[in-house]
Amino acid sequence: MPYVAPLKDMLFVLNELADLQAIATLPGCEEATSDTVEAVLEENARFCSEVVAPLNREGDRHPSTWQDGQVHTTPGFKQAFKSYAEAGWQGVQHPSQFGGQGLPKLVATPCMEMLNAANLSFALCPLLTDGAIEALMTAGSDAQKAQFLPQFIAGNWTGTMNLTEPQAGSDLALVRTKAVPQGDGTYRISGTKIFITYGEHDMAENIVHLVLARTPDAPEGVKGISLFLVPKYLVNEDGSVGERNDVTCVSIEHKLGIKASPTAVLQFGDKGGAIGTLVGEENRGLETMFVMMNAARFAVGIQGIGLAERAYQKAVRYAKERVQSRDLEGSSTALTIIHQPDVRRMLMSMKAQIEAARALAYVAAAYVDIAHHHADATVREKHQALYEYLVPIIKGWSTEMAIDVASTGVQIHGGMGFIEETGAAQYYRDARILTIYEGTTAIQANDLVGRKTVRDKGVVVRALIAEVRRMQTMLNAQEALQPIAVQLGSAAAALEQVVDYVVANVQDHIKIVFAGSVPYLKLAGIVFGGWQLARAALRAQAMLASGADDADFLQAKIWTARYFAEHQLSQASGIASAIVQGGASVMALDEAQF
Amino acid sequence: MPYVAPLKDMLFVLNELADLQAIATLPGCEEATSDTVEAVLEENARFCSEVVAPLNREGDRHPSTWQDGQVHTTPGFKQAFKSYAEAGWQGVQHPSQFGGQGLPKLVATPCMEMLNAANLSFALCPLLTDGAIEALMTAGSDAQKAQFLPQFIAGNWTGTMNLTEPQAGSDLALVRTKAVPQGDGTYRISGTKIFITYGEHDMAENIVHLVLARTPDAPEGVKGISLFLVPKYLVNEDGSVGERNDVTCVSIEHKLGIKASPTAVLQFGDKGGAIGTLVGEENRGLETMFVMMNAARFAVGIQGIGLAERAYQKAVRYAKERVQSRDLEGSSTALTIIHQPDVRRMLMSMKAQIEAARALAYVAAAYVDIAHHHADATVREKHQALYEYLVPIIKGWSTEMAIDVASTGVQIHGGMGFIEETGAAQYYRDARILTIYEGTTAIQANDLVGRKTVRDKGVVVRALIAEVRRMQTMLNAQEALQPIAVQLGSAAAALEQVVDYVVANVQDHIKIVFAGSVPYLKLAGIVFGGWQLARAALRAQAMLASGADDADFLQAKIWTARYFAEHQLSQASGIASAIVQGGASVMALDEAQF
Repeated sequence: MPYVAPLKDMLFVLNELADLQAIATLPGCEEATSDTVEAVLEENARFCSEVVAPLNREGDRHPSTWQDGQVHTTPGFKQAFKSYAEAGWQGVQHPSQFGGQGLPKLVATPCMEMLNAANLSFALCPLLTDGAIEALMTAGSDAQKAQFLPQFIAGNWTGTMNLTEPQAGSDLALVRTKAVPQGDGTYRISGTKIFITYGEHDMAENIVHLVLARTPDAPEGVKGISLFLVPKYLVNEDGSVGERNDVTCVSIEHKLGIKASPTAVLQFGDKGGAIGTLVGEENRGLETMFVMMNAARFAVGIQGIGLAERAYQKAVRYAKERVQSRDLEGSSTALTIIHQPDVRRMLMSMKAQIEAARALAYVAAAYVDIAHHHADATVREKHQALYEYLVPIIKGWSTEMAIDVASTGVQIHGGMGFIEETGAAQYYRDARILTIYEGTTAIQANDLVGRKTVRDKGVVVRALIAEVRRMQTMLNAQEALQPIAVQLGSAAAALEQVVDYVVANVQDHIKIVFAGSVPYLKLAGIVFGGWQLARAALRAQAMLASGADDADFLQAKIWTARYFAEHQLSQASGIASAIVQGGASVMALDEAQF
Repeated sequence: MPYVAPLKDMLFVLNELADLQAIATLPGCEEATSDTVEAVLEENARFCSEVVAPLNREGDRHPSTWQDGQVHTTPGFKQAFKSYAEAGWQGVQHPSQFGGQGLPKLVATPCMEMLNAANLSFALCPLLTDGAIEALMTAGSDAQKAQFLPQFIAGNWTGTMNLTEPQAGSDLALVRTKAVPQGDGTYRISGTKIFITYGEHDMAENIVHLVLARTPDAPEGVKGISLFLVPKYLVNEDGSVGERNDVTCVSIEHKLGIKASPTAVLQFGDKGGAIGTLVGEENRGLETMFVMMNAARFAVGIQGIGLAERAYQKAVRYAKERVQSRDLEGSSTALTIIHQPDVRRMLMSMKAQIEAARALAYVAAAYVDIAHHHADATVREKHQALYEYLVPIIKGWSTEMAIDVASTGVQIHGGMGFIEETGAAQYYRDARILTIYEGTTAIQANDLVGRKTVRDKGVVVRALIAEVRRMQTMLNAQEALQPIAVQLGSAAAALEQVVDYVVANVQDHIKIVFAGSVPYLKLAGIVFGGWQLARAALRAQAMLASGADDADFLQAKIWTARYFAEHQLSQASGIASAIVQGGASVMALDEAQF
């Protein structure tokens, strides 16, 4: 099953919704001209489709294997990663000072989507390295930056995030791994880390672990966690790879999906302690980790979009090929199943949700670029806040969407969908991790309620809702778009009601409010995703009115927005009702009553 | 992971909602006394938990294998099936005249649920045999009945349904398998059938295929399909097993789930034609097949409920054991995750949906018993119609629910849920077939719209809605139950709106109406499932008021109904809006726009 990058859709979002032209005027983003961006995306599309996508089934059939502490990745992965590195793809969004291309996140984001659509398991390795780069950029010393960033960006070395321990998953306060200072600026790290993605593999010369651990006199809880950089091979003064560090891969997991991606159990310090250096300050590791995690959470949202797009493409192809059943209005012979109304409904549901999630994520990427590059500090701050509000939604909502879309993809294939050879089932299995790692949907929703809504008493979210209301008014002025405006308006009202409720009740009824946190996240995803599709419809309408080419494409944007409005935005008031009225029944039973 | 049959919940539904006592007064159902039923269920629970449930993981790890036309089932299955047969479980609901126990379907239904909860793959073999028994009871000749029914019921032989061919899945008009009469009352059958569950295995002495095929002069389409009985081994006049028939298992499928259940490709007639006998009349095979399919569809709905219950039990156990994170209201140490509001929400969602689906299915089973055994023909007819209306809902809604619940079960396990050793992932994989086989959810929804709603212009569904309205009034009289009454009322109104819309528009806008068929099925499931939980709450309230023991259990019934009302019934008007307003946007795009 080939992957065809949806470049036209991506460019529509970039140009019409995320205002690439404006981003390219920001200081440091001048290279992102329309021509360059198109060329980069086309080349990335070619690479992902030709080199990476064909390895996706291979990875599922021949997962990474473990033997005596070594991991052999799926045949072909090593070579593909070498090509990826040589072509400079690891560096797209990273500073040219360390060898990157220094392109805006808005441009890197479709590249990420394509890589993930092509091969989720493969894409995880660069994704984790991006996180490590982000962490060092934020809190690394100059020496650490100089030693590691060029190697990461060149794709010679890869990065990992070591958070989880058997007793410490969502709750990092429970982390026990120890870091003992040696008096020479280094620490000796010992402990067990689990679920470490690409914690061991054969695709790079060195693997650099970013490890959460506690120093001997650290306070309890999350305020006593520090972040350490612990390479698999120590690095010599000249920057070359030196001795093996005291970290070993004890095993890898046998998983439901993303089987090619090795998920390692790492043992640090069996021979006296792995040597690591501190990143940032002692006891402030979680802050840095959160920088890295926000980037990683955004990236996992993009994984959801990429995977959903791939599942959608496969379903569309099958629906156009599979001949079965007559037309409901009467036909003498059997037709392809795309003529069946329920197959249409499923395809529209997939298409509309993917386009909504993509538009929202890309617009958020543009906010990051503004937050990093805009000349005006107020504008920077405002966009940083908007981005941070949207991250848990992009992560949580897009990944829940991906599971739904992958499952719908199986359904469209009927019995064939359940047969592994068909390939639709792999997406259903692969997708299932996305709502779990980098913080479950509940963790995203806690973040959305706690840090992102309650802390500022809803200021940022109300600013976003005001934009939605503005769009509603503009749509209302166009007769053809009024059905969208109506749904957008009542959905915005539902979200307003929920925000008011959350802010008003969190103090006195914290559990009741948090019982509605995931539905709130879902509601916010629907409203802001629907907002983006409404913007797309308005833009398409204007382009049609001014006689733009490609009426089919633009008309489809309008109908897709309308489908989303009538089938997704229409669910908003029901969700709000469940949140506002339904908290008590969530919490009512005693443990023994389950 | 053990399975503990939810006998208390089952008996509550049997006694308080499905009126077992009344069923036991029907002619031919007298043996279903309260004591007998309890004893049967307890013994079935013991058998399923001790003998069948432990083989569930085994089946996933060691699927059935194929070699040279023979299938070896998972080690342990053959012995377990022997025990199942010897204990008489295959005959629970079948006539004593042929060796069965002749118990009501209302009693057989919880037995089916337990077997499926214990082991979906294993339970499929008896499920298919039940279907074959049903077909022969309906249309078999006396000779066929005498020769096959006692062997089926004793568990010596098993049955299969042979419908699907590579080009004929949902659309049976495309069936090509041929049946040529030999002039001696037999036919020679040739063709290829795929997706044949337990089409070949080593658990029984003989396998009896019920095969759809066309005679040489049959009309085209579904009106030219006949049903044949084609045993793997021909049966001698004395009833003993004779020569091998001309049917071979060419391969079995490599599937996403239910791996222990062999899904066979069967080749009929490579050596001149398999010998079969006609069941019923020529060209009327589909009618008989539909009898069998209605029973099988109901049974697949029960599979969904059983699987969901198993996934729920596993999630509850994990949530009570896994220590992680502090209490939101403050706690000095980490607590089990069942204290987290979102884990509660997920568990309540699972529990409420399972209980709603179970209650609806058991009540429908009681309708079947009334339809078969009541002295008054009018009462029989009425209940047959109610049952037939509910079958596509029980199949479609309960199985969609099962996928959702199994996925939620994975989510509650966090990262561990994605590791195959944990076992939660198996339910997620196994569940995925349930919305596909025995007719996809879309096929159920077509049936619901076409045969079950449009044909009688909504008479039956309106009769059911009238019952819902009556219940709403009764709940309204109890202050504590008013929140449920409110939601039940608006959900009933939403369903009324949809029924009116479907009946009024199907003629002129058939595709637009069918674009809403699956949402209509979902809405009907929510309304009628919510109705049953509302009945449960009213009954529990009355029992509490009269000082019944076990207040915890009864209070939980009330809260569960309320949760369902506030979180599921509350979604009804949004779904109705999507159906009534959203049809055009489903159908708007051209094929090329996807």
